[in-house]
Amino acid sequence: MQPVRFIQYGLGSIGIGIAELALARGHRIVGAFDIDPAKVGHPLSTLLRHPAAPADVRIASPDATALAVRADVALHSTQSRLSQVRSQLESLIDLGVHVISTCEELAFPWHHHSGDAAALNERAHARGVAVVGLGVNPGFVMDVLPVVLTSPCHAITGITVQRVVDVGRRRRPLQQKVGVGLTVDAFHEGVAAGRLAHVGLPESVAMIADAMGWTLGAIDETIDPVVGSDRRVIGLHQRCRGMRDGAAAITLDLTMAVGAKDQRDTVAVDGDPPLRIELPGGVQGDQATCAIVVNAIPQILAAPPGLRVATELPPRAPASRSLPG
Amino acid sequence: MQPVRFIQYGLGSIGIGIAELALARGHRIVGAFDIDPAKVGHPLSTLLRHPAAPADVRIASPDATALAVRADVALHSTQSRLSQVRSQLESLIDLGVHVISTCEELAFPWHHHSGDAAALNERAHARGVAVVGLGVNPGFVMDVLPVVLTSPCHAITGITVQRVVDVGRRRRPLQQKVGVGLTVDAFHEGVAAGRLAHVGLPESVAMIADAMGWTLGAIDETIDPVVGSDRRVIGLHQRCRGMRDGAAAITLDLTMAVGAKDQRDTVAVDGDPPLRIELPGGVQGDQATCAIVVNAIPQILAAPPGLRVATELPPRAPASRSLPG
Repeated sequence: MQPVRFIQYGLGSIGIGIAELALARGHRIVGAFDIDPAKVGHPLSTLLRHPAAPADVRIASPDATALAVRADVALHSTQSRLSQVRSQLESLIDLGVHVISTCEELAFPWHHHSGDAAALNERAHARGVAVVGLGVNPGFVMDVLPVVLTSPCHAITGITVQRVVDVGRRRRPLQQKVGVGLTVDAFHEGVAAGRLAHVGLPESVAMIADAMGWTLGAIDETIDPVVGSDRRVIGLHQRCRGMRDGAAAITLDLTMAVGAKDQRDTVAVDGDPPLRIELPGGVQGDQATCAIVVNAIPQILAAPPGLRVATELPPRAPASRSLPG
Repeated sequence: MQPVRFIQYGLGSIGIGIAELALARGHRIVGAFDIDPAKVGHPLSTLLRHPAAPADVRIASPDATALAVRADVALHSTQSRLSQVRSQLESLIDLGVHVISTCEELAFPWHHHSGDAAALNERAHARGVAVVGLGVNPGFVMDVLPVVLTSPCHAITGITVQRVVDVGRRRRPLQQKVGVGLTVDAFHEGVAAGRLAHVGLPESVAMIADAMGWTLGAIDETIDPVVGSDRRVIGLHQRCRGMRDGAAAITLDLTMAVGAKDQRDTVAVDGDPPLRIELPGGVQGDQATCAIVVNAIPQILAAPPGLRVATELPPRAPASRSLPG
C-alpha cells in the first residue's frame, strides 16, 4: 500500500510498538504525543528503536497547537476507559484525521456508553473521518474471530470463547493489571476501584450481539482471583455472559495467570452446523495488538465516516483495481 | 436486517439451498430462473420446501424478458467456470442488481481471467452494482479465514491450509466430481477434460497473494487420484502452491475422498508470531456455501460498486447507527 502520514498519540509500550511497526511498514510519522512530562521534549528517536524514526520529530504534549499537523491517520494508545480518552479522541477527530485507538471501551461503546458513542459518531461524521477501537482483545480473538466463524452457519444459538493466557513471561504492567502478587483482599479492592482486571469483555459481548442481530436481556461479568500456593494472587479468571431469553447466548471466559497451563484460544459456535476452532498457544497479546492496529490502516482509510466497529472492517481494504495489461 | 427482494438464478441443489435459507431469513423471492427445460414453467413451490415459497412465482428460462424483474440482489448458482457464466452475470448486472455467485472462478478472477474480470468490473461500475463470488471453498476456508488470521501478525512468510473432506456421506454429484468409482485412467482423462476435480484452489492462492500484497512467480497445481483397495478411485488429492522467490509461500492441500480419515481444516500462518487454527471436523461444504451466500447479503448491498473479492467484505455490514434513546 501507499505510505501514509501518521500521528502517534501515546508512547507507552503498546504505542511504541505500534509506531515502530508502522515505520517498518514504510509509513511516515509526522507527530508524536504523550502526556507524560518525562517524555515531552525528547527526540522521538530516543524512544523508537527504528532507523526510520526521524531525527527532527520531538515528543510533544498534545495541546491544540502542537496537534495541528497534517496527517492521514492517528494511532492512539493511551487508556482503557472511554471517559479517560474521549477528549483526546475529539481533538484528533477535529484535526480531520482517521483514528485507530487501542482504548478497550472504544471497541464497542454503543451498548455501555451509548451517549459517548453517539457524540463521537456524530463528530466523526461531521469531519468525514472514521474512528475505530481495535486490539487483540477486544477487537479480534473474542469478537471478530467468532463473528467471522459464524459466516458458514445457517442458525446460531450460542457463542463461547475461552482464552487462557500465561502472564508469567509478559510485561510487568500486564501482570499488575491482573493482580499478580496481591493478597486476595487487595485484589478485590483493586477490582472494585477499577484499577485491576481486563477491560473489554462486556464490549466484546455487545459487539457479537450487534453482529448477530441479537437483543440481549443483560450482560453480566464476574472477576475472580486465581490464587497460588502461597495464598498470593497469581492472576484472574473473568467471565462475561450475554443473556438472551434467560440463557447465556454468549460466554467469554478469560484466564490470565502466571503459569496458566494449556495457553490457548478456543472459539465455539453452537449452531447449524456447530463449528469450533482452536488456536493452540493462543494469540500473543501485545504484539498482536500492534499488528492489528497497523494492518488496519488501509481499511480505516477506506471506511465510511463515523464511529466504526472492528466487525465492520473487511480483512482487506476494497481495491480500486484498474484494467490489467 | 430489512428483508430484500432477491432473484434466484440456478436451482440445482446449492441454488435450492440458498433460496430456502434466504426465504427462512425473511427475504422475498421475486424471480426464479433455470436453464433446465424440465424445471422451467413449474411453480417454484414444487422445488422449494419452505412455506414462504410464493405460489405465484414460476421457474422461468433466463431470457431478457423474464429477467426484467425489480430486485435488490441476485443469488446466482450455476456453473464453476467463468467462461460458462459470464453472459449470465452480465444479464444480471445489466438488470441493475447486486450479484452474489457461487461460481468458483469468480471468487478471484483477477489473476487467471484478468480480461473477464476487468470487463465485469467495468460493467458493474457502470451500473453501480457490486458483484462477488462466494462460497465455502473458494471464498472462506482456504482464503478468507487465513487472511483474517494474519491480522495479528507482524510479518508473514508463508500460509498453509489443509482441508480433509470425507465425501462418503455427501451428495452424489460431489462424489462424481472427485472421481469416485472411476478407474485411474478414466480419472486422469476426466481431469484433463476439465470434468473432474475441485475448481478454485488457484483462485484462493491468488486471493491470498492479493490480500498479502505478494507478487507470485507462479501458481502450480497437482491433481492426483486417491485409490481404494479395489483399485477404483475413491477421491482425489489436490495441491496448489503460490511460489514467491522460488519457494512455496502459499500451499493449499485438499483431500476429498470416501472415508477420508480425520476430517478437518487446518490453517497455519508462518510469521511473527506464527499462528495455527484447527477446525476439528471441518466446515460442511454445501450447507456452508448456502449460509455464506445468504449471510453476505447485507455486505454486498453496502459494498462499493464493481467486481469485489470475499476478503474485501466485512464480517458485518457497516451500520448507520442512529442516536440511541
